[in-house]
Amino acid sequence: MTTLSTTENVTAKVDAAVRAFDRLRRTSPTERAELLEAVAQALEANAATLIPLAQAESHLPQARLTGELARTTYQLRSFAQLLRAGDFAEVIIDHAKTDTPLGPTPDLRRHLIPLGPVAMFSASNFPFAFSVAGGDTASALAAGCSVIVKAHSGHPELSATTAAVVRDALVSAGAPDGTLDVVYGQQSGIALLQDPRIAAGAFTGSTWGGRALFDVAAARQRPIPFYGELGSVNPVVVSREASKAKADAIATGLVDSFTLGAGQFCTKPGVIFVPEGSTIPKLAQNALADAPAQALLNDRITAAYADSEAHFHQVAGVDTLVLGAVTDVGVTPSLFRTTLGNLLEHAGTLLEERFGPSVILVEYPAGADLASLLDSFEGSLTVTIHALDTGDVGIGDALDRASLIAGRIVWNGWPTGVAVSAAMTHGGPYPSATSALHTSVGVTAIRRFQRPVSYQNVPDLGLPESLRNANPLGLVRAVK
Amino acid sequence: MTTLSTTENVTAKVDAAVRAFDRLRRTSPTERAELLEAVAQALEANAATLIPLAQAESHLPQARLTGELARTTYQLRSFAQLLRAGDFAEVIIDHAKTDTPLGPTPDLRRHLIPLGPVAMFSASNFPFAFSVAGGDTASALAAGCSVIVKAHSGHPELSATTAAVVRDALVSAGAPDGTLDVVYGQQSGIALLQDPRIAAGAFTGSTWGGRALFDVAAARQRPIPFYGELGSVNPVVVSREASKAKADAIATGLVDSFTLGAGQFCTKPGVIFVPEGSTIPKLAQNALADAPAQALLNDRITAAYADSEAHFHQVAGVDTLVLGAVTDVGVTPSLFRTTLGNLLEHAGTLLEERFGPSVILVEYPAGADLASLLDSFEGSLTVTIHALDTGDVGIGDALDRASLIAGRIVWNGWPTGVAVSAAMTHGGPYPSATSALHTSVGVTAIRRFQRPVSYQNVPDLGLPESLRNANPLGLVRAVK
Repeated sequence: MTTLSTTENVTAKVDAAVRAFDRLRRTSPTERAELLEAVAQALEANAATLIPLAQAESHLPQARLTGELARTTYQLRSFAQLLRAGDFAEVIIDHAKTDTPLGPTPDLRRHLIPLGPVAMFSASNFPFAFSVAGGDTASALAAGCSVIVKAHSGHPELSATTAAVVRDALVSAGAPDGTLDVVYGQQSGIALLQDPRIAAGAFTGSTWGGRALFDVAAARQRPIPFYGELGSVNPVVVSREASKAKADAIATGLVDSFTLGAGQFCTKPGVIFVPEGSTIPKLAQNALADAPAQALLNDRITAAYADSEAHFHQVAGVDTLVLGAVTDVGVTPSLFRTTLGNLLEHAGTLLEERFGPSVILVEYPAGADLASLLDSFEGSLTVTIHALDTGDVGIGDALDRASLIAGRIVWNGWPTGVAVSAAMTHGGPYPSATSALHTSVGVTAIRRFQRPVSYQNVPDLGLPESLRNANPLGLVRAVK
Repeated sequence: MTTLSTTENVTAKVDAAVRAFDRLRRTSPTERAELLEAVAQALEANAATLIPLAQAESHLPQARLTGELARTTYQLRSFAQLLRAGDFAEVIIDHAKTDTPLGPTPDLRRHLIPLGPVAMFSASNFPFAFSVAGGDTASALAAGCSVIVKAHSGHPELSATTAAVVRDALVSAGAPDGTLDVVYGQQSGIALLQDPRIAAGAFTGSTWGGRALFDVAAARQRPIPFYGELGSVNPVVVSREASKAKADAIATGLVDSFTLGAGQFCTKPGVIFVPEGSTIPKLAQNALADAPAQALLNDRITAAYADSEAHFHQVAGVDTLVLGAVTDVGVTPSLFRTTLGNLLEHAGTLLEERFGPSVILVEYPAGADLASLLDSFEGSLTVTIHALDTGDVGIGDALDRASLIAGRIVWNGWPTGVAVSAAMTHGGPYPSATSALHTSVGVTAIRRFQRPVSYQNVPDLGLPESLRNANPLGLVRAVK
């Protein structure tokens, strides 16, 4: 079941996805909502099978996986709700006019249609929410695309079992065969992305792996959009005022945030700016005294993390406040400290994303401008600001500067919670995303898998239902 | 003035564009609307200078250029209107909730912000509407981006003069220096696109040139979106019923459409399917009997067109109904004919876009399925269907199939008129566009130069104005 796919069977799976797409693209929004809801229900019904499998393969704790499965079904239902609300097709109806400054214009009607079969590369750290039935799959299915998932090597059995549950649910709810399938192994993933009939790619993972796939997508004879979420350092800026007034709460919050899920979130805060003389470093160090070891996702990740930590704590000018250890159970957290000057000197090393429970505190001097602290960062999923008030010295400029490098700006909170909300942006400038134009979490993620088509003077009966005068699908439409 | 730019001055121009962007991104929608309107007004005020320059460099007739300038100012004003209407920032305000199935969610507010300085590569065939002050520039400025135009080598003096007019207007209206600039020469264009501070590219031109630039954009250390409009064959399908009932009107309309502007439109119909036995080929041949010669844009295009035509009419199975000639004045149109079988046999040659007044009629046999006629085509800006009724044999399926390859479907009309409308899609699957996700004509083109940013629990005073509770900018906002 989880043997590597051959190139031949990748082609056969794309054949089926193409046939499925030809039916899916004709389904009504309500029909697709029912498919998504059926998938959500089936996942819940099979939780007792799926969660232990996820636990065995990912080493994530049961409570976390139970929550993640709830998040996954909530995502599916959010897209179903979007489809039922009819607000996803960006319909614009521009009736014929005789009186424009350029003379008469025809009747033009525009809506969004699905792109075609999507190749989805799942992540190791969210075996449900960013895997076979995760947000990328949900948004592509909502758009009317079929999906072929390249299973993550970290949870192949879970991927196969989830796919079986999802496929059964889809077929029972009336979806065509080939609506969702899974391939295994790196070569199959590349073959999938290179198949000329695949219309888009989505990916969550490392900068290295994501860039390699982005390059494959861009080098095709017909290039396709490739939505990669690659890597993010998630800087946190603590104002002088906040450091004075609530160092304790910030230190505790920081420790909770960067050790959550063993620091294996793409939104883990990685670099925390505090004023020189702040008590936050000491408080965080104390809070970590008895931090338990947590298992990382797999041995490969543990080995890479241990290597990176060993290297990191030897960088000149880096103080090791807490040095994590690799134990039989997993890893304990690390806490480092440096100065702003030293950070800039070793930016190449110190500003790299480190996947695991490790952060570095950076002490900024008295005269430092908070906004400029963000200048050394590449694109990031988030920037977090801790302050007492928007009037704290330099905070207004820091908020503004944050918008230039991030997709989400968090105020007096922590970035590790990514709400599934219509207003969420999970993405940002490269490398946090290969395309900053769209989010990968929240219902506007559907727009990644849609394109506009316009109809000029086509009579009502020749129009797709979404554009007919009577609006039989009840879509939200702008009429001019 | 129009000497080649050196790499050094490209860098200096990007420096200025970066500084300008930092001010432009803070302007209000109303301020940007005023800038666009000032540019429109200045172009009109300088028409008597600009149009003769355009005539001299492009060989396009005065009436056409007058109309094109009107279209250009209309485009600018359409984006101004969009900004004034406040419907361009996709604002979603999702208030904090305590009762979601996943527990409490934070206050999240999302809007679109401008990407950054844009590199724009202008086209030869629309020296106003797809050049210095054309639709790409208008949409980027509307978003709040500064623009550096790589001038087309076909109209360097016009580019320089237009840029001077636009810059004067912008500066007088309060825009920062560096809001718009121009560079010259291929190497400067590449250096521009490679500059790490450039945030997006836009291009209208050949498939070869556009793909080369797309590859440059994708190969950057930080890849950027590159919106290329590359090439399009624009198939036309005439139903049996339409051919019987209105062959005369179709033949006349076809001749007018493919000879308009000497066939130098990206929306020129290139391949026209008619039923075997149709009188359309004969009627079109007659209508072309006294067709006048029209100048092509420049000598390079004339030479390339003459070569391509000479080659084309020697392809096996192609009947030459009218063979165009190159005269001192310009070129006269060509009309070719072949069978469906022969088209498929020589698809590599016969389905290539030919820039100039030349089309091929393809006779389909009695049993042919109309939808399947479209199967050999790559992505196309348009598909046109001539029919009596949506009930004509095979028309429903042909309309549906058209949506898979095109951005716009034209009914009983001709594709060469591209209305500037909110519902227009000018774009489509590759190679008609490098990104099918967005149009390049009409106000939704602004979305190419915007990205979302979300604010989590940020207090009102720390929010950008578009997201504040009082909605001081009067934007269209979805509140949940």
